[in-house]
Amino acid sequence: MRYVIIFALFGLLYGCAGEVDKPRVASQEVEQTFKWKLMTTWPKNYPGLGTAPETFAKLVERMSAGRLSVSVFGAGQLVPAFEVFDAVSQGTAEMGHGAAYYWTGKIKGAVFFTAVPFGLNAQEMNGWLHHGGGLELWRELYAPFNLIPFAGGNTGVQMAGWYNREINSMADIKGLKMRIPGIGGEVITRAGGTSVTMPGGDLYTSMQTGVIDATEWVGPYNDLAFGFHQVAKYYYYPGWHEPGAMLELVVNADAYASLPDDLKAIVEVAARAVNQDVLDEYTSRNNQALIDLVDQHGVELRKLPNEVLAELERLSAEVLDELAAENELTQRISASIKTFKENAMAYHAISEEAYYDARRVNK
Amino acid sequence: MRYVIIFALFGLLYGCAGEVDKPRVASQEVEQTFKWKLMTTWPKNYPGLGTAPETFAKLVERMSAGRLSVSVFGAGQLVPAFEVFDAVSQGTAEMGHGAAYYWTGKIKGAVFFTAVPFGLNAQEMNGWLHHGGGLELWRELYAPFNLIPFAGGNTGVQMAGWYNREINSMADIKGLKMRIPGIGGEVITRAGGTSVTMPGGDLYTSMQTGVIDATEWVGPYNDLAFGFHQVAKYYYYPGWHEPGAMLELVVNADAYASLPDDLKAIVEVAARAVNQDVLDEYTSRNNQALIDLVDQHGVELRKLPNEVLAELERLSAEVLDELAAENELTQRISASIKTFKENAMAYHAISEEAYYDARRVNK
Repeated sequence: MRYVIIFALFGLLYGCAGEVDKPRVASQEVEQTFKWKLMTTWPKNYPGLGTAPETFAKLVERMSAGRLSVSVFGAGQLVPAFEVFDAVSQGTAEMGHGAAYYWTGKIKGAVFFTAVPFGLNAQEMNGWLHHGGGLELWRELYAPFNLIPFAGGNTGVQMAGWYNREINSMADIKGLKMRIPGIGGEVITRAGGTSVTMPGGDLYTSMQTGVIDATEWVGPYNDLAFGFHQVAKYYYYPGWHEPGAMLELVVNADAYASLPDDLKAIVEVAARAVNQDVLDEYTSRNNQALIDLVDQHGVELRKLPNEVLAELERLSAEVLDELAAENELTQRISASIKTFKENAMAYHAISEEAYYDARRVNK
Repeated sequence: MRYVIIFALFGLLYGCAGEVDKPRVASQEVEQTFKWKLMTTWPKNYPGLGTAPETFAKLVERMSAGRLSVSVFGAGQLVPAFEVFDAVSQGTAEMGHGAAYYWTGKIKGAVFFTAVPFGLNAQEMNGWLHHGGGLELWRELYAPFNLIPFAGGNTGVQMAGWYNREINSMADIKGLKMRIPGIGGEVITRAGGTSVTMPGGDLYTSMQTGVIDATEWVGPYNDLAFGFHQVAKYYYYPGWHEPGAMLELVVNADAYASLPDDLKAIVEVAARAVNQDVLDEYTSRNNQALIDLVDQHGVELRKLPNEVLAELERLSAEVLDELAAENELTQRISASIKTFKENAMAYHAISEEAYYDARRVNK
């Protein structure tokens, strides 16, 4: 450890040059530097999703005065998007940025830490994770993989997606080929549709050629960037499948353990700041992007009928209950979210929701 | 500067003890330590409001490995609550934590940076500040006072408050003596009531003795702590006067300028993290506190009638327009918020709001 060397230096110096200002032992290890790799599941610098880890790296670099430098790699630059989890687990990179539900095939409960249909919105998800026991459960879930997860951004409520078929009843979901991952995809399948998973970059062409009839992606800010309005007839709301999609920063546990405490804190607090920054950015950019889509590109907004939402909610609860029954841990995670959601719904009915209504009282 | 000494040490050592690991010049100044005072407008350690600056101090201490230590003082410990702004402006303390609208008497536009009636909620306020130009305007407003403001927490939508009189129409506001500061207070006055400003600690007794008929404070989490349910008949919603009350951290500009860049970044990022942490805490604690109030203490919830909300909205717009007309800067601030709010309302109507509705589709 470097502080030993510094301490030795002072010892030697006292011996050969007499008194100087007294050394501060608190400065131990401040000299050691770390160079980390951070792999992401997003195209390098993709708006919001891809810029979040870049922001994280900049904050860490500045706060640590360069003692911890983090190089960010986009999907495919070192490993393909869906291999980020394994790469960080094995220590090929010290960090990863993505979304927990990409690892559903490997870890049954992972999806709970991105978003579940009709679950928590962004504000509630942050409340549950940081003051409701959520983060502790997430860490328990990832511990066997030598990974420590942090909340790494939130997109807010996502849109229901782009459709080339009007949805007037559940009959219109039958035979629908839709790109929709996670539990939302399973729900569409149970409703008689076909859910497809494919990377964002393939969606435009797949919509254009009719390989798929519909796709969800994120919301106006990201959707406008992909140009879906050029290849889809309708833009549906409300999003029901990802009401507050949480991104994740994962850190290899050995790499984290090797950091002195100040750098550990810097990683933790930078993650927390970036987590908020992403939501702030989406909250701001989505507004303007929606105006552009509707006013400049003539996008037609459509609301999913309540009859359809009701059935999707019923199917979602069914799928979530099966998932909860997988093992003891998924059961605890599910129970924790359910209780938090029930209580949040009761309070938000008289706070956030009631306020949204009140604000429109003279409109 | 300490790095000169370290550099000299290495120089001497090379001369007297031969080769060691090469020194890193990047570590310049890492040895300099700063001891700051942070004054708050809250009782020391008051839930949420008062614990936020304590959390900030802990994060800064850890991230800086003790190079920047921040001692937190509650209201009245060094200066009274409402003298925090001046004390930090003059450098008596390096930092303060409170709410911008406490300084309305001194700075006309300050209230825009806490909350205005029927304005932005917490998510929107954060979006506006950090990705919508709000923070830049806030800094412009505070620059003449040698202060740099940061967002320092958000309580979410506040409750309309505790009443010992039922509000069924605007006639019931006439003659109402209510503790409600800021623009909300001005609105109550214009509606024929009497608005009173007094510190939180005096409210319980004032309600008990009938000095006031009503008081707003924050929301279930903080209100339960003050025991208002023991001295008030009704708990009203929705809050219309502070839809997303933003707390502030202010830093004396000279003190900030004296920091090396890594400590500047640490202050900035710790503030950002605490800003989110406060909202997360309120989001989680308010839920449970509401249950306690209703189930254990038999609190009666009442909704303000739409007729009343409509008139309060009309009066609020009137007061806000007058405030905007004060000077060129208040005009720009007001215009910026108005545009952001309009756009956010359009997007949130099909995202957050529509989702809240969708989630209750089977309830």
